[in-house]
Amino acid sequence: MSTSPHPLDQAIQLHAQGEDLYQGRLTPAYANMVGPFGGAIAAVVLNAVLQHPQRLGEPVALTVNFAGPIADADFEIRARPARTNRSTQHWSIELIQAGETAILASAMTAERRETWSDQELACPDVAPASEVPITPVSGFTPWVDNYEMRFIDGMLTFRPADARDDSQSRLWIRDQPPRALDFLSLTALADVFFPRVFLRRQQPCPAGTVSMTLYFHAGSAELAACGTEPLLACARAQVLHNGFADQTAELWSADGRLLASSQQLVYYKA
Amino acid sequence: MSTSPHPLDQAIQLHAQGEDLYQGRLTPAYANMVGPFGGAIAAVVLNAVLQHPQRLGEPVALTVNFAGPIADADFEIRARPARTNRSTQHWSIELIQAGETAILASAMTAERRETWSDQELACPDVAPASEVPITPVSGFTPWVDNYEMRFIDGMLTFRPADARDDSQSRLWIRDQPPRALDFLSLTALADVFFPRVFLRRQQPCPAGTVSMTLYFHAGSAELAACGTEPLLACARAQVLHNGFADQTAELWSADGRLLASSQQLVYYKA
Repeated sequence: MSTSPHPLDQAIQLHAQGEDLYQGRLTPAYANMVGPFGGAIAAVVLNAVLQHPQRLGEPVALTVNFAGPIADADFEIRARPARTNRSTQHWSIELIQAGETAILASAMTAERRETWSDQELACPDVAPASEVPITPVSGFTPWVDNYEMRFIDGMLTFRPADARDDSQSRLWIRDQPPRALDFLSLTALADVFFPRVFLRRQQPCPAGTVSMTLYFHAGSAELAACGTEPLLACARAQVLHNGFADQTAELWSADGRLLASSQQLVYYKA
Repeated sequence: MSTSPHPLDQAIQLHAQGEDLYQGRLTPAYANMVGPFGGAIAAVVLNAVLQHPQRLGEPVALTVNFAGPIADADFEIRARPARTNRSTQHWSIELIQAGETAILASAMTAERRETWSDQELACPDVAPASEVPITPVSGFTPWVDNYEMRFIDGMLTFRPADARDDSQSRLWIRDQPPRALDFLSLTALADVFFPRVFLRRQQPCPAGTVSMTLYFHAGSAELAACGTEPLLACARAQVLHNGFADQTAELWSADGRLLASSQQLVYYKA
């Protein structure tokens, strides 16, 4: 039985350096084609908020702007509670490397109270994870090896004949090795979708997320209750226009609860 | 013929105070039940970026975190280009009143190039604005008098018998008096939807937007070409959970182009 931390926790580990200041370095395990996997970047940014001694409540919203490249080297994260209210708190976060802002982020934390609730969006009616074979994805880019993916539809093949006029992807996914769900792993999972422009054209082109916003619709106990079960991850573009495409996405628990929803803007050069 | 500026331009007027610093004050015309209309706040925040002498390109993304109340008094906006790349720029923006952060925002501007583009989401098939009667909304809250609204569905009545199990609203809308479309008026229009929890329950409760992200899918020339024609505005919640509801929304031109898409997180106490 291994006692070393999960690869995700190794990657997003932070060391407090003083008030509002943390030092970190993502690991090669979460490398992407250029720089680190955006989901790991978003998770390490959120981790600074989660570790901050002044944090109030749990994350409800996170916006990460990918302002510049991140090299395989140390960086600093400055996380500052810009405003603290009675039950909510707003965070300003900046990841700085070699003196330059690489990530500009904001987060909101809140103490939730149980109240009238309703899920309007219906969970997609798909086969359970146990009935969907694991999709071989190794070799695409390093970070994918940290995930077990079971594509239902919208898999990237880079065969032009597979180009379609819609960019929906739906897959069951979990950390590999499995890791109990929490805000950090959920944040990383929200960015596992290949750029929709790849899927539309089934050919590679320069592309990358420039901004991502994530809303959390569950508390820590609800996430913990998901354990290591795969989540259903769904994404599609609404419009791809002159170099910028959007992407809306949802992450569902195995029992059909919408745990998180997100919106991304993705640069592309087609 | 009047030569005074449009009420929106009066409301979001800014005075440069020095490097990265602007002074402003929203007008009573854009007041909401508590504080100013969030759409006017988002527009004045974007205006600081648009007026900044170092701006590169046009807005592609805007996130506005409503951190605290704004009083009917002067405020300062600090807008700083945190990172400037070859064709993109990332902005950190803060609205400060009486020494406290009331708004924490980020924006991205970019020089777009014409390239392969496609609109995946289909424009809703609804009657044209000319065939939908103007909905009387005056009296709800002051800011609504600045808009001409033509509801197709999802109008707020506050009659409990009208409570439904979905929160979709679709309406044709434009500034009143009419104003040629640009990034500023489009930004304000993205926040014209009443909290979805009101519509679900058709009863008032404490509620307000805490975070809004807006992506622009058109350039300034494309917006100008819309002139003063009404836009089709559509919104719905996906989930309302323990005090926080999301809202996804789209703004369409009369000829069916997706001009902007947005995501909001809305606090509610039900």
